[in-house]
Amino acid sequence: MKIDILTIFPEMFTGFLTSSLLGKAVKKNILNINCIDIRSFTEDKHNTVDDKPFGGGVGMVMKAEPVYKAIKSTGVKKHNNLYKKPFKKPLVVFMSPQGEKLNTDMVKQLSKYDHLVLLCGHYEGIDERAMNWVDKEVSIGDYVLTGGEVPAMVLIDAVSRMIPGVVKEKLSVEQDSFFNGMLDYPHYTRPAKFKNMKVPDVLLSGNHAEIEKWKNKQSFERTQKRRPDLLKK
Amino acid sequence: MKIDILTIFPEMFTGFLTSSLLGKAVKKNILNINCIDIRSFTEDKHNTVDDKPFGGGVGMVMKAEPVYKAIKSTGVKKHNNLYKKPFKKPLVVFMSPQGEKLNTDMVKQLSKYDHLVLLCGHYEGIDERAMNWVDKEVSIGDYVLTGGEVPAMVLIDAVSRMIPGVVKEKLSVEQDSFFNGMLDYPHYTRPAKFKNMKVPDVLLSGNHAEIEKWKNKQSFERTQKRRPDLLKK
Repeated sequence: MKIDILTIFPEMFTGFLTSSLLGKAVKKNILNINCIDIRSFTEDKHNTVDDKPFGGGVGMVMKAEPVYKAIKSTGVKKHNNLYKKPFKKPLVVFMSPQGEKLNTDMVKQLSKYDHLVLLCGHYEGIDERAMNWVDKEVSIGDYVLTGGEVPAMVLIDAVSRMIPGVVKEKLSVEQDSFFNGMLDYPHYTRPAKFKNMKVPDVLLSGNHAEIEKWKNKQSFERTQKRRPDLLKK
Repeated sequence: MKIDILTIFPEMFTGFLTSSLLGKAVKKNILNINCIDIRSFTEDKHNTVDDKPFGGGVGMVMKAEPVYKAIKSTGVKKHNNLYKKPFKKPLVVFMSPQGEKLNTDMVKQLSKYDHLVLLCGHYEGIDERAMNWVDKEVSIGDYVLTGGEVPAMVLIDAVSRMIPGVVKEKLSVEQDSFFNGMLDYPHYTRPAKFKNMKVPDVLLSGNHAEIEKWKNKQSFERTQKRRPDLLKK
């Protein structure tokens, strides 16, 4: 999968793209991730990407032109529809608190694309007219951040887990929280006794049927207690 | 505000902590952020932080002992309650898909603390017994990530915006999406005409009352169309 990140802070991605599972997937060429600096598509001496908002108000707004040019530079031609084939064309995603909320279903859909273009905004937002070249606005949650860079990392991390070869064990992905609509059960590892706290007996019993039953029960009870909204779905 | 990040991938934070508004806040000592490597609290030759899960299953589980020691190293003594004073003691937050969902209210609460300790998990999770030293589990959304590092960045980004001096203009924070329970209105900047697309006339009118009315209407209509759930609250 190819991912182009359009940003005015490409240096923010340094540690993220070279560490952990993602760093390995990039090294192995399973993921081809490029940071494209929106500033390089400005033509004035100061590489200005923002300007005052029409109609007044605080803060600055990112100009349409450099954003438009940055999107075009990735080879984007026509609009896509996230939930329709073909998945061959680049899909342009704008990371924005105004967007549709990211969830596991959307992550699975996005992972089908060969090429994603992630647009990261800053300041008060991006000139609305640039949205004509955006296929989808995606929000990672109901909170405001200084820019779209960390949300882009969230999306890349979640989507790349679905790409074969990034996470070693396929079962590991499928047993995670939300994959089946429930929270994960508690985990324990050695030692069996830590500061007077023991591991639940059933996990040491070797009785696989009982262990499965315990895991399902824990998973259900935890979801019921912490996130009853997930069970309603 | 002091923030300690407990992680096995401290290098992931390099770009994040030195760029953009956050980088400036760190330089100005408004934020004091430390990455603490959980591996440095292991005692074996290979600095092992994980082990096989009791009861079987795929993947590995992070051991309780190094996590416990890493938390203790930050000066944590007693449990806190997120929604109760005093805010002086360090609050230990575990970034986990099993946690309470982050939202603007929680961000405001967290920003009152002098000292946050953010615990980032990896693999299948952390030995449940380590949760005895955790005050709160926080989830950034209903999707699974490879670890707690990117969620910690989300939390730090959101919370630091509330700290005086990080975002230049206070109004800028207060007018953002969700701060008042609605999505933001569309923004426009120069040029007034871009590729045959004009800025809405009202924004060029100079009539401040009309502009305010337009902004409120846009904000309401957008929320109604994209996130009707926000209006029900």
